[in-house]
Amino acid sequence: MKVGYLGPKSSFTFQAASELFAEDTLVPFASIPLTLEQLEAKKIDFAVVPIENSLEGSVHATVDHLFGQSSITVKEEVILPIRQQLLGTHSMEQPEKILSHPQALAQTKQYLKNHYPGVPLEAVSSTTFAAQYLAKHSREKVLAIASEKAAQEYNLKIIAADIQDNVMNQTRFWVLSTEKKKKKTTNQQNKKATLFITLPANLPGALHQVLAAFAWREIDLAKIESRPLKTHLGEYFFIIDIVLNENEALLENAITEIELLHAKVQWVGRYPINKFT
Amino acid sequence: MKVGYLGPKSSFTFQAASELFAEDTLVPFASIPLTLEQLEAKKIDFAVVPIENSLEGSVHATVDHLFGQSSITVKEEVILPIRQQLLGTHSMEQPEKILSHPQALAQTKQYLKNHYPGVPLEAVSSTTFAAQYLAKHSREKVLAIASEKAAQEYNLKIIAADIQDNVMNQTRFWVLSTEKKKKKTTNQQNKKATLFITLPANLPGALHQVLAAFAWREIDLAKIESRPLKTHLGEYFFIIDIVLNENEALLENAITEIELLHAKVQWVGRYPINKFT
Repeated sequence: MKVGYLGPKSSFTFQAASELFAEDTLVPFASIPLTLEQLEAKKIDFAVVPIENSLEGSVHATVDHLFGQSSITVKEEVILPIRQQLLGTHSMEQPEKILSHPQALAQTKQYLKNHYPGVPLEAVSSTTFAAQYLAKHSREKVLAIASEKAAQEYNLKIIAADIQDNVMNQTRFWVLSTEKKKKKTTNQQNKKATLFITLPANLPGALHQVLAAFAWREIDLAKIESRPLKTHLGEYFFIIDIVLNENEALLENAITEIELLHAKVQWVGRYPINKFT
Repeated sequence: MKVGYLGPKSSFTFQAASELFAEDTLVPFASIPLTLEQLEAKKIDFAVVPIENSLEGSVHATVDHLFGQSSITVKEEVILPIRQQLLGTHSMEQPEKILSHPQALAQTKQYLKNHYPGVPLEAVSSTTFAAQYLAKHSREKVLAIASEKAAQEYNLKIIAADIQDNVMNQTRFWVLSTEKKKKKTTNQQNKKATLFITLPANLPGALHQVLAAFAWREIDLAKIESRPLKTHLGEYFFIIDIVLNENEALLENAITEIELLHAKVQWVGRYPINKFT
């Protein structure tokens, strides 16, 4: 089986993909739209892309590409802790600079302030680029912040492990497929469904009416978020994540009712959650 | 009066600021956090920053900086159409490349495909950088996509006007202040309030309960969106925009009730809307 993912090979998405697809061919792509287009064109069997980070929020490129399309569904969710490593080719007292992607630099700001005060931080295009730079310039006094996979890939030393300031930094990834048939899953206990709901009009209370259909059935919403419809300013669709248990018949009733209220419901997927720590 | 804004001088935020503060000193800052920090330190009287674009959604840097703080309030909203211009130092049959910020390139994708098929598009750090490059390299066969203000600022020709694909591309800007006293406004008809609401716990139906407090009073919500609390994955606060009319007493009752349900309510501002076309 061929599994496409948001590359490069040392990315956190690669880590998520390899947790579920250890024995398959993993193919990196340069962007989220490119990965999903390969899936739509059936050049790959599965696509793995990030959907939400606990600090940054939803990954809009993924949400916006999935909105309005009907061929792709979510098969699995993978939740990974995001751990940043301080990497080097050798230990050094006082590095001349520290390289990383702006997001990784932001996530380790406090650590760098405490341990490397005054050392210039240089933003580069990706954590992989930072690791690559070190591997290619092994005699320079430069450190990089990147993933553990990057350390392995470029044969770098972990100078300090897990240096992210916020220990709760996690990312959700989705495994997507165009196949309708169910994939055997590792986890049958913990399941969710995701819907995209477009309200009939910007009526006062329209969203309240939709939520009421879930609330009186005690259907638990794990998340609700709005994204612009890209039509007019102030027009949105809603991303709604539902915790599944024995309520699936009730959920079907709720969706039928919501559609009778002239809201449009897109069923994005029904999927187990695979949480790694 | 000193008004800080997200620069540079040819940015759309500058345009928004100059619509309301024609006779004041406008000072550009390099980022949204920097602009807001200057306001908090009372080095400027007002700050103008973007809050939402009709295609890209909320500006997270603005939302996240305002969450949890109490000194800054919204005084005015400015809505501007975002119009992209094709700029050059001279007309040319076949440019060697076209420069702009990735967002501006994305917003004019269809136009460029129809009128300049095969011409390489080069992503640069800002539309201003693209315009500056042209001004400095006037003999190269290069075009740029940037604002009308950038054309004026760098004395460039508008080769084609308003080339954005989506005519509904608009951005909302907020004028923020630490002053409690009301500013005289140009528009008393069209008003909104923004609240940040943190639910007491991740209970099924907690959001529904909060929305019910608005719905049965027929209080019109213009927007509801969630942002991560940056604590655990799956914990959010809600941005709620309310259309104000004669319902302000009702709104106060609703907020009192919501607080009695142990939700935390942050009053971000009550402000008139200034819409330019």
